[in-house]
Amino acid sequence: MPPTDRIRDHAGQGATTVAAHRARRRLRADRARQLADLLRHQILGGGFPSGTLPHESTLAADYRASRNTVREALDLLRAEGLVERQPGVGTVVVGRKYPHGLDRLMGLAETLHEHGRVTNEVRTMGPAPAPLPVADRLRVPAGTDVLYIERLRRLNGLPLSLDLTYIPLDIGTALLGCDLENTDVFHLLEAVTGRPLGHAEITLEAVNADAHSAAVLQAPRGAAVLMLERLTHLADGRPVDLEFIRFRGDRITMSGLLRRSL
Amino acid sequence: MPPTDRIRDHAGQGATTVAAHRARRRLRADRARQLADLLRHQILGGGFPSGTLPHESTLAADYRASRNTVREALDLLRAEGLVERQPGVGTVVVGRKYPHGLDRLMGLAETLHEHGRVTNEVRTMGPAPAPLPVADRLRVPAGTDVLYIERLRRLNGLPLSLDLTYIPLDIGTALLGCDLENTDVFHLLEAVTGRPLGHAEITLEAVNADAHSAAVLQAPRGAAVLMLERLTHLADGRPVDLEFIRFRGDRITMSGLLRRSL
Repeated sequence: MPPTDRIRDHAGQGATTVAAHRARRRLRADRARQLADLLRHQILGGGFPSGTLPHESTLAADYRASRNTVREALDLLRAEGLVERQPGVGTVVVGRKYPHGLDRLMGLAETLHEHGRVTNEVRTMGPAPAPLPVADRLRVPAGTDVLYIERLRRLNGLPLSLDLTYIPLDIGTALLGCDLENTDVFHLLEAVTGRPLGHAEITLEAVNADAHSAAVLQAPRGAAVLMLERLTHLADGRPVDLEFIRFRGDRITMSGLLRRSL
Repeated sequence: MPPTDRIRDHAGQGATTVAAHRARRRLRADRARQLADLLRHQILGGGFPSGTLPHESTLAADYRASRNTVREALDLLRAEGLVERQPGVGTVVVGRKYPHGLDRLMGLAETLHEHGRVTNEVRTMGPAPAPLPVADRLRVPAGTDVLYIERLRRLNGLPLSLDLTYIPLDIGTALLGCDLENTDVFHLLEAVTGRPLGHAEITLEAVNADAHSAAVLQAPRGAAVLMLERLTHLADGRPVDLEFIRFRGDRITMSGLLRRSL
């Protein structure tokens, strides 16, 4: 074999080895993600009531995965803040996500009442001229004053969401004297108008928190945020509450049921 | 005045100045976020059909904000990848989010049919023993083989989501010969079983993309991902499709309508 051929052959083998190594790494990463998804579901669903995950070898057997894959999956969940490694104890559940219903229109305290107490820090509250798109959606003339409220909402003291709220002033004025620290706006709207709420158009997105929102929510900069935009109407159809809500992604899941036919 | 008092006084003034400066900065950041939320809604709703945002001074007037606030709001939207500054042109819309319905159970191609063509790159497909929680939810004995599919889904060539799918093998086997590259699994499930889908339990979360998912989705590491977990049942109630879907947060919004009373 001439030397050039030998070199080519050698290079070819090298490439194969690199490719094979990459393929193995990709496969393990795929499997780790797959396993992390299953474990996340178990953790969030209360599948480990002791608060401690089974030993890596037990997980490997239960989930038909290699020890390396189990370790990589646990790394992913650790990066999400769901679990922690405690020396002498093992892997413990530290994160907790709270379920927000997607099936019925509910305020935060209402939807989380089983999980603890919601308190609201009112950061800003007062009349402000409605920018054009707010005015349009609340069906008031552009530039009319609306009530603007900014609240940091906590569950059992932990920051959950940052809510920006716009309410037409005829209804909003009555809210100024209410106990916004301890009461959902939904509840107050129904009390103040004496009418039930009807429906809301919602939009959900995942965004990275900007520096300022992250600071207010006490989350790392760039943390994933579940952003909910919601325009709520009274039962008679009048739009009365436009909200932009940033939920900490690591503390909230939204659950619901979808049907194939309407 | 003794020197210590003078020092104390000076320190006090310094503190006030710093506090005032911080308060002003916080207020501007709050206003910028508020404006960014309104502009984001306009952008995503097609409120700037020319693709170019009005001049900063026009935005300042329309939204009753200062030029500084407008600039900061545009910075936030730029960081999200929604707009870009083009010299001589102004601020142009570059990001586009596609609306995924939250009101009815639909496949991706089905829900996005107005927006273009969905294609699926099948990264993995084949029978694999069901891990315990998958077996439980699909109601098959633990360790039974199920069909596992991993797909990267694109709209008009742009990566949208990474989907991990588990399907009982009696149905899954029939899917092996189907055109998964161009067809929703939902459509195939109905075609293969000859029965309509019924409902699905869904959970939505915002998470930061792990390194590997980010690479597959061609998104930056840590990018916000809208994670959808969905267990879909046939109309007769049998669970037939467990999916873990990671949507790029910058390309998908989920929209729906919630009612106060059920």
